[in-house]
Amino acid sequence: MRTVHVELGERSYPIYIGSGLLPQAAAYLIKHGLSVKSPHLIVTDDKIAPLHLETLKSSLEGAGFRFVISIVKSGESSKSLSVYEEVMTTAIQGGLDRNSSVIALGGGVVGDLAGFVAATYMRGISFIQMPTTILAHDSSVGGKVAVNHPLAKNMIGAFHQPELVLYDLDTLKTLPAREVSAGLAEMVKHGLIKDKEFAYWCKEHASELLLLDLDALGYGLERGVAIKAEVVSQDEREGGLRAILNLGHTIGHAIEAVGGYGEFLHGEAISIGMAGSALLAEALGRGEGIYTETTAMLTSLKLPVVLPDHLNEDDLMAAMMHDKKFKEGTLVFVVPDSIGSVSIVKDIPQTLVRDILKQLRKGGKVNV
Amino acid sequence: MRTVHVELGERSYPIYIGSGLLPQAAAYLIKHGLSVKSPHLIVTDDKIAPLHLETLKSSLEGAGFRFVISIVKSGESSKSLSVYEEVMTTAIQGGLDRNSSVIALGGGVVGDLAGFVAATYMRGISFIQMPTTILAHDSSVGGKVAVNHPLAKNMIGAFHQPELVLYDLDTLKTLPAREVSAGLAEMVKHGLIKDKEFAYWCKEHASELLLLDLDALGYGLERGVAIKAEVVSQDEREGGLRAILNLGHTIGHAIEAVGGYGEFLHGEAISIGMAGSALLAEALGRGEGIYTETTAMLTSLKLPVVLPDHLNEDDLMAAMMHDKKFKEGTLVFVVPDSIGSVSIVKDIPQTLVRDILKQLRKGGKVNV
Repeated sequence: MRTVHVELGERSYPIYIGSGLLPQAAAYLIKHGLSVKSPHLIVTDDKIAPLHLETLKSSLEGAGFRFVISIVKSGESSKSLSVYEEVMTTAIQGGLDRNSSVIALGGGVVGDLAGFVAATYMRGISFIQMPTTILAHDSSVGGKVAVNHPLAKNMIGAFHQPELVLYDLDTLKTLPAREVSAGLAEMVKHGLIKDKEFAYWCKEHASELLLLDLDALGYGLERGVAIKAEVVSQDEREGGLRAILNLGHTIGHAIEAVGGYGEFLHGEAISIGMAGSALLAEALGRGEGIYTETTAMLTSLKLPVVLPDHLNEDDLMAAMMHDKKFKEGTLVFVVPDSIGSVSIVKDIPQTLVRDILKQLRKGGKVNV
Repeated sequence: MRTVHVELGERSYPIYIGSGLLPQAAAYLIKHGLSVKSPHLIVTDDKIAPLHLETLKSSLEGAGFRFVISIVKSGESSKSLSVYEEVMTTAIQGGLDRNSSVIALGGGVVGDLAGFVAATYMRGISFIQMPTTILAHDSSVGGKVAVNHPLAKNMIGAFHQPELVLYDLDTLKTLPAREVSAGLAEMVKHGLIKDKEFAYWCKEHASELLLLDLDALGYGLERGVAIKAEVVSQDEREGGLRAILNLGHTIGHAIEAVGGYGEFLHGEAISIGMAGSALLAEALGRGEGIYTETTAMLTSLKLPVVLPDHLNEDDLMAAMMHDKKFKEGTLVFVVPDSIGSVSIVKDIPQTLVRDILKQLRKGGKVNV
């Protein structure tokens, strides 16, 4: 088993990564002081529940834990205020008190939703994450929890750190291929922003990663999580540095919003967004060849890098204006300097962004 | 002008109390570094807007601030998730960014709602309170913000400290008599839990307070706020000590919930609750005469101390079980030791609580 410690002072917590962890869930909860007197809330979705809920339940029941369960519909549509209210209702009816905790069994959507419930139920109770996707390795570090507003993604949320993260690699075996690739998008992103060697490692081990080889996956998740933890430790509340984690996210979020949250997986959207950031870097005269290098890495992981035709340019621009990264009237982008290093560039003109979108649609650096 | 500093490390903030402050609002915002580039959101209600919104707008416009406005319906029903979502929509459409702030112009409901919006918009932006009720002197200290769930009050919320509180006593002149009394309930509560002299001062100056004499009111608010600030400074996240502020709130919240949030003002409900806590103190053999002393203070401020007949006992008990103070299966009460001192007593049997409710209905200590 691998353990990564996220250092955040009194809010520090460990991420346990390994095989066979879910059947031992209760032991980890006891180790971390979870109350057996107070009821807990498990939040999961209708795709994960049939696969892994029984394993978690048996472990908890065997140790005398009491709990209620909220099973939400799989997918981004569950990150809504109405589903949030339903989960709150389950928590209240289940009698959760201040010593209770919310356990997220699932991917990023379940983690974000359950985390926002934990952050705001009785003004904040304990939160435990049990990720079942590769993508969730990203959201399990940093305490960013949120639901979507119909006008913009992740607009309603909080910073709420988990008590612990239990990452059972066995739960990844049932992931559809498309979700594997989408999850690896965030993994390679961590290399692209801060660790050149790791970015190339992801490309070199792409086939093992895509086949969910436990060794490669264990190492990749450990390294991805550790890079993110390093950034978050230095900037818990996203005052500055932490924004580098948003590489590919300005365009990526717009793609998700215009596509209607569901057409694109988050990892697919930010993959196109990272290709866009590489084009932007070249347009700004930063490091020739970044676009080719970046897209080679992304395509090795079977990720999309071309903006689909049916996403209207004006709609994408409008969505970017609503994004949290649109600050005081100017567009802010995370732009690569080279593979493994990025800068935050403010005051990007809207006309340049439109040019990049046009190039991105053609699949590369062309005159448009 | 009187200034109380709430000491919370890097989250410390001042409360300015005085006459004629609202027309100078912009100067205070500038002093506290509010951005004139980013738009802000004013949240107020339909009773306060006609009285004070123009004053605030003129001040802000004069200084070049940009803002959008959300006017909600007056009353507890606006502390709902659906109103919260509407206010969020206004914030997003108004283009609020991370340098924006939410300004609450109103009483406790507006403060709680606007504060929860500020706590969760983009995972937290600045919050400024401009209270227009006496009751809000309580909620303006401590950073507890929340909305209600249909099943229980304040169940959905956060801790989010304001940047500053601007308390213009002139806005209190238009308060209906019933709201004046209800506001004074929290003021005398601060005396009852921690300052015997101030509790008796409230009783002795009851007629001046009820007539909104500026000197008496200014001193009362300053002292009430200072007592609360002292408690909150020692226990920002309600780990222990802070619970003493809940004197009268276990029964009080149940009265509000069963009455349907609207029949009773919060101050009226906790006044009956404080009478109940005094009865409980005597039933537990703590300080003879507390009930008579407490109710004399409350009635001097024209507050109710008798539980109305139409509130069903079983419903009240059920509501208490859903309250946040119902912890791991036992009832927890804040119980007076004497005037000016309280203890937190755990494991209060439900049968005793039922006895107290029966006595409270009869208006005193009688065999039931």
